[in-house]
Amino acid sequence: MSKDLRVSVLMDFYGELLTEKQRETLDYYYNRDFSLAEIAQHMDISRQGVRDFIKRGEKQLADFEEALGLVKKFTEINSRVDELEDIVSGISPENLEDTVPDIFGKLEQIRDLM
Amino acid sequence: MSKDLRVSVLMDFYGELLTEKQRETLDYYYNRDFSLAEIAQHMDISRQGVRDFIKRGEKQLADFEEALGLVKKFTEINSRVDELEDIVSGISPENLEDTVPDIFGKLEQIRDLM
Repeated sequence: MSKDLRVSVLMDFYGELLTEKQRETLDYYYNRDFSLAEIAQHMDISRQGVRDFIKRGEKQLADFEEALGLVKKFTEINSRVDELEDIVSGISPENLEDTVPDIFGKLEQIRDLM
Repeated sequence: MSKDLRVSVLMDFYGELLTEKQRETLDYYYNRDFSLAEIAQHMDISRQGVRDFIKRGEKQLADFEEALGLVKKFTEINSRVDELEDIVSGISPENLEDTVPDIFGKLEQIRDLM
């Protein structure tokens, strides 16, 4: 995952835990692709101020992920759902008996992730 | 859910975001059933101090859940997994054609929750 995309994803999960200013700055910078100069002008602060909000916000997001690991957890649940879709796509009356235990196994894996 | 159980569950999700003291106090009080007096003695602070840590910690946990809604989200994913288990338990060669779309529907609901 590129750094920009990674920050956007972390924002989706933890944005609500940031301060309003941090969230706004990161949103302009990572989601809307504004330059530091544009954000500085828009928020009426210095470019260094913008840089500080971004650095601090990124650090907070990384700390939240280290503490809660939600991105990791949801990514893994998503992979298990992908695998379940593959399994269910290939189900037939002939392989039903072998396939059902596989489905239960995957569902158990999802539960273990929560 | 009783208040005690609810706090324990919130602790499982957001405990890492509390301060060490808050986490310790809530853990003694809600998970290990210590009295305020016992916690005060153990942590060498006043009973009022213990009460303050608990109140502040509970407030923080409630704020985290309001911001991120993880308990709500995981409870709903868990319900969808329960329903999937029920559906898959009743699958047979005869109803396979009708059941597969139901399974995909539930998997889609899980994705939408993430």
